[in-house]
Amino acid sequence: MKILIIGIDGYLGWPLTQYLASRGHVVGGIDAYFRRKQVKEVGGQSAIPIADPTERRLAFKEKYGYKLHWVDGDVTDWDLTLKLFKDFKPDSIVHLGENPSAPYSMISQKETLWIHHNNVLGSLNILHAMKEVTPNAHLVKLGTMGEYGTPNIDIPEGFFEVEYRGRKDYLPFPRQAGSWYHQTKVHDTNNTMFACKIWGLRSTDIMQGVVYGTRIDEMGEVDKRFRTRLDFDECFGTAINRFTCQATIGEPITVYGAGNQTRGFLPLRDSMQCLTIAVENPPDHGEYRTFNQFEETYSIPQLANTVAEVASKMGLNPVINRLDNPRIEMEEHYFNPDHNHLLDLGYEPTHDMKSELSLMFQDLVENKDRIKDVKDVLVPQIRWDGNKKKSEKLS
Amino acid sequence: MKILIIGIDGYLGWPLTQYLASRGHVVGGIDAYFRRKQVKEVGGQSAIPIADPTERRLAFKEKYGYKLHWVDGDVTDWDLTLKLFKDFKPDSIVHLGENPSAPYSMISQKETLWIHHNNVLGSLNILHAMKEVTPNAHLVKLGTMGEYGTPNIDIPEGFFEVEYRGRKDYLPFPRQAGSWYHQTKVHDTNNTMFACKIWGLRSTDIMQGVVYGTRIDEMGEVDKRFRTRLDFDECFGTAINRFTCQATIGEPITVYGAGNQTRGFLPLRDSMQCLTIAVENPPDHGEYRTFNQFEETYSIPQLANTVAEVASKMGLNPVINRLDNPRIEMEEHYFNPDHNHLLDLGYEPTHDMKSELSLMFQDLVENKDRIKDVKDVLVPQIRWDGNKKKSEKLS
Repeated sequence: MKILIIGIDGYLGWPLTQYLASRGHVVGGIDAYFRRKQVKEVGGQSAIPIADPTERRLAFKEKYGYKLHWVDGDVTDWDLTLKLFKDFKPDSIVHLGENPSAPYSMISQKETLWIHHNNVLGSLNILHAMKEVTPNAHLVKLGTMGEYGTPNIDIPEGFFEVEYRGRKDYLPFPRQAGSWYHQTKVHDTNNTMFACKIWGLRSTDIMQGVVYGTRIDEMGEVDKRFRTRLDFDECFGTAINRFTCQATIGEPITVYGAGNQTRGFLPLRDSMQCLTIAVENPPDHGEYRTFNQFEETYSIPQLANTVAEVASKMGLNPVINRLDNPRIEMEEHYFNPDHNHLLDLGYEPTHDMKSELSLMFQDLVENKDRIKDVKDVLVPQIRWDGNKKKSEKLS
Repeated sequence: MKILIIGIDGYLGWPLTQYLASRGHVVGGIDAYFRRKQVKEVGGQSAIPIADPTERRLAFKEKYGYKLHWVDGDVTDWDLTLKLFKDFKPDSIVHLGENPSAPYSMISQKETLWIHHNNVLGSLNILHAMKEVTPNAHLVKLGTMGEYGTPNIDIPEGFFEVEYRGRKDYLPFPRQAGSWYHQTKVHDTNNTMFACKIWGLRSTDIMQGVVYGTRIDEMGEVDKRFRTRLDFDECFGTAINRFTCQATIGEPITVYGAGNQTRGFLPLRDSMQCLTIAVENPPDHGEYRTFNQFEETYSIPQLANTVAEVASKMGLNPVINRLDNPRIEMEEHYFNPDHNHLLDLGYEPTHDMKSELSLMFQDLVENKDRIKDVKDVLVPQIRWDGNKKKSEKLS
């Protein structure tokens, strides 16, 4: 299958390139390198050193025997996007080309507008390009479990049967996104659903949980050019990735707020497995389907404890701090999302968070100076109320 | 009260300026004149001749005794928007500054992207300007009944109690918008709801039905500079406005499809009344509320018959044609939206469509040459499937 990865240079994009290529698919991609730029902009750096795009392309060609169709550029550029589709003619598009940071989107007016421009307009260009060039292709679009918010009822996979005042319908599940970033993902979900309806496109919309981890087997042990980034700054570092980096350098693991916020999580290797299952099992023409993609739900304090437990076994001395929560979110809530669609298609969850964490710590300890170099970015200061102030420890 | 109208030069904006000023409010506004430009761009013109902005401002000053704070410009320009809020310091903002055309948004990639840029990014700037300058102001935002689509259950006003698998929550009602334009309105609804939640802003989100009519009493009879536009092209002409223009010049009234699509409608004077009720009865700080704003629901064929009936009485010879539907929409469906919130606050619907139509015909017959001049724009050719082709008469 010919698979186009939007955001091929990213945390997920680069491992997915390898995962799909190892399974015999022909991979291509595009990247505008916003992630590299923005991590620098907020003062961070990847804990794991990463090769530059030229080196990555070269490594790929050496290992897989063909040159990646890899375009430097931005899908908000319509002419470029159209040309990419005409040149590559993908069977499947995996759209990982959106800015994924809730805190980044909350910095100021500038970032709120930029993330809407980048995520929403970029995604619209992909839909229009599909319609014009590859109407039979399959769009695997990355949404987020955060689109649903934390309703007090079970969360189905995208749609649910509603009974209301004695009548019934099967409707999209209401979304209650908790940041401007999450709002852009909801907008994209609505737009993708609509494009499938009117143009007969097909799409799998992945409501992905929070991903953690440094490795997939396909990276191998030797050639470092196959490694992917691991961010730990307050914008681009997701919870477990940040916690492990904190424990690695002896900084406190920081849990936001006094509560038990609960989310879905999955390791990087499971994310690769799930995205590939979606790609290899396309829906019918005109079908729009939603997969909730995570292994298990965990509360954040529970995760912090697990990270601390593994860190202790690795000889580190982890401490867990509760910080005043920079976000506006429910800290105690019901959370019970379905996640059967992927299991039905053969997803086999890793179910071994502790081994994954050990592996992460090995990689991170090796690079602890890179974390120490910019450790100030571990403490959150971007607040949902619009102020900017370092979060303080709760007594 | 100081009220800022975004889109002050528009079909609703200019009458609302007069309606509010007549009630003693201090009005200001901004307009980028996209409506004037785009109606020309699609080959149309207003059936009612309208004064240019300079003349409108002068007329206002002569009648109401003060100079309107009227800015020429675009709310997607952040610096300009921020300055406007700082200079005018509104108590209330009525946001009519979005492109309202479903067909326009469906023309091509260019228009889909532009309408997202204009509507979504412009609305975000307004929210950010409120947060920075007037956090206690009240945003009256114009949404559309079309955001709900046509679900097979009753449509509440914005939110509903859901019982699902034995648990309950009060959630946003699912939206199923039927065009890129309608999608932008859903995005704005989601964004506005979120801004109220995190920043404590307050907003009344108006899900407005389709507006028709040429008049409000405040325009008076003599000074033509107070008249508002009336579009009849396929992009900017809403159903009844288009039907009356067709009947005026002896062209067939064109109903899309063979079905009974049903929508909520209200005359221009009721729209003014409702928007003013919203402005004068603000919600609490941090409150986001939704009003479904229409007088009654009617099926499109029923409206065509009513227009034809009144046209006949005016001595015209109306014919009704069914055209193959350029849109992708359900042609037979359940439609039962609530609309109690405004009635509870004192909205008194006109309940006399036939008188309103007679008045419209008087205004239109006077200007029939302006309709004849560009009558080709009455026939739809923008199709939801992405093709462009004049709709043909159904046998």
